[in-house]
Amino acid sequence: MRFREASGVTRITEASFEAALAPDWDIAGVVDGGYLLAVAARALQERTGREPVAVTAHYLSPGRTGPAQVDTAIVKTGARFSTGTAMLRQDGGDVLMLLGSFGTLRADADVLLQEYQPPRLPPPDDLPRVRHTPGHPFPPPFMDRVDLRLSPEDAGFLGGQPSGVAQMRGYWRLLDGEPYDSIGLLLAADSLPPTSFNSGLHVAWTPTLELTVHIRAVPAPGWLRVDTRTRCISHGRLEVDGLIWDSADQLVAMSRQLMLVPQG
Amino acid sequence: MRFREASGVTRITEASFEAALAPDWDIAGVVDGGYLLAVAARALQERTGREPVAVTAHYLSPGRTGPAQVDTAIVKTGARFSTGTAMLRQDGGDVLMLLGSFGTLRADADVLLQEYQPPRLPPPDDLPRVRHTPGHPFPPPFMDRVDLRLSPEDAGFLGGQPSGVAQMRGYWRLLDGEPYDSIGLLLAADSLPPTSFNSGLHVAWTPTLELTVHIRAVPAPGWLRVDTRTRCISHGRLEVDGLIWDSADQLVAMSRQLMLVPQG
Repeated sequence: MRFREASGVTRITEASFEAALAPDWDIAGVVDGGYLLAVAARALQERTGREPVAVTAHYLSPGRTGPAQVDTAIVKTGARFSTGTAMLRQDGGDVLMLLGSFGTLRADADVLLQEYQPPRLPPPDDLPRVRHTPGHPFPPPFMDRVDLRLSPEDAGFLGGQPSGVAQMRGYWRLLDGEPYDSIGLLLAADSLPPTSFNSGLHVAWTPTLELTVHIRAVPAPGWLRVDTRTRCISHGRLEVDGLIWDSADQLVAMSRQLMLVPQG
Repeated sequence: MRFREASGVTRITEASFEAALAPDWDIAGVVDGGYLLAVAARALQERTGREPVAVTAHYLSPGRTGPAQVDTAIVKTGARFSTGTAMLRQDGGDVLMLLGSFGTLRADADVLLQEYQPPRLPPPDDLPRVRHTPGHPFPPPFMDRVDLRLSPEDAGFLGGQPSGVAQMRGYWRLLDGEPYDSIGLLLAADSLPPTSFNSGLHVAWTPTLELTVHIRAVPAPGWLRVDTRTRCISHGRLEVDGLIWDSADQLVAMSRQLMLVPQG
């Protein structure tokens, strides 16, 4: 199933939408957080007629394959931004709450300052896809729903050789070159393996408490390059900072999530 | 007026609180965004009995000195986190909406990874306070409500000599050594002059669309060191990333805000 359909929502009332979380978009049975965010944001995108500019999700309970409902509320409709909330529910339980501002994404580049650099990677065709290994928890089924090519510098953990740097970089696109818009960037922001897998530290399952994505521009078609990095693991938390570059070398999105480190 | 009183809220009903935005906490008549965030978070802190861990505010209209109301809603009460929203209103108009998760801040250091470094600064007593200049828009009245000592490397813009790096670093505390808790960190996260003032670019007034703060720990008493930096100004937006260090060299908070760059 294409992402556009998998993340689609059907309007039921002015404020409520129905969705169906598709099979195999999960990690160990838990639906990917970026996919959940995309579905919730899609509802507000349809309601406001605007694109996500700054969206924050708090994860309340694990998402599961199956029917879902998204209840939206508009907080403000301004000249440039519409701000609203979206609650994604399943079986009457709250899964994710989103607060976001939606607006117009400018097409012109207009870069006044850029201190970040896109990651240097070999051509994507030279890199293997990360694929789900049936019968194993990792790589999870979700990996078969996107086309991810990890940097050789960061892929060693797949063979038991973590890099020692809590970073994951790679090319990312939807399957079969399916085009994506701003909503696809929300998926991409939570599509790479946990940075902790490369940390060399004994940090295992890290549930996400909160994820914020700032979208700067509509991405140009083609491969994205995603760079995720953790620089501080302390007090039972770690952050993952993401930079997403499009094929025109534009920094199209910045993301940060706060994850919980299990107490040993 | 001390910050504790200036940011105090009085419970009116189970969900609603009254506040009074104090005089002189403004920048050109607009109340500081960190102060607004602190007031809104204070209401949820009181309602949940927990400390802010991850809070996001979307700014809807300028805050003004005077009465305010904070209407809270609890989304989830879990074993470790309470998630809720708070809407700060004035005269019936929406000023700020907060979505946040509140929990326990661990006291033990427990740092597994730390790639950031606190800024190197001369002793605070060797640095002048940034003070409001009556009759001038900058430094604004708000600067007299906190005790900010900018790094000499970043303070040249006050004399018309921006550093050329979109960064502001300095010591920060409340006036007269007033103690602060996690809510004080929310104020500190939006207390330094705009990074754009040091960029050397023609970026003037930059209203905040969204501000997220992750709090890792209760700060130790004494001076904070705050390091704010902008690395990408593009497509009509800029981010400000903040790191807040306490006197025990703990990274106690990370912040990011998305600001709007006026279209020329």
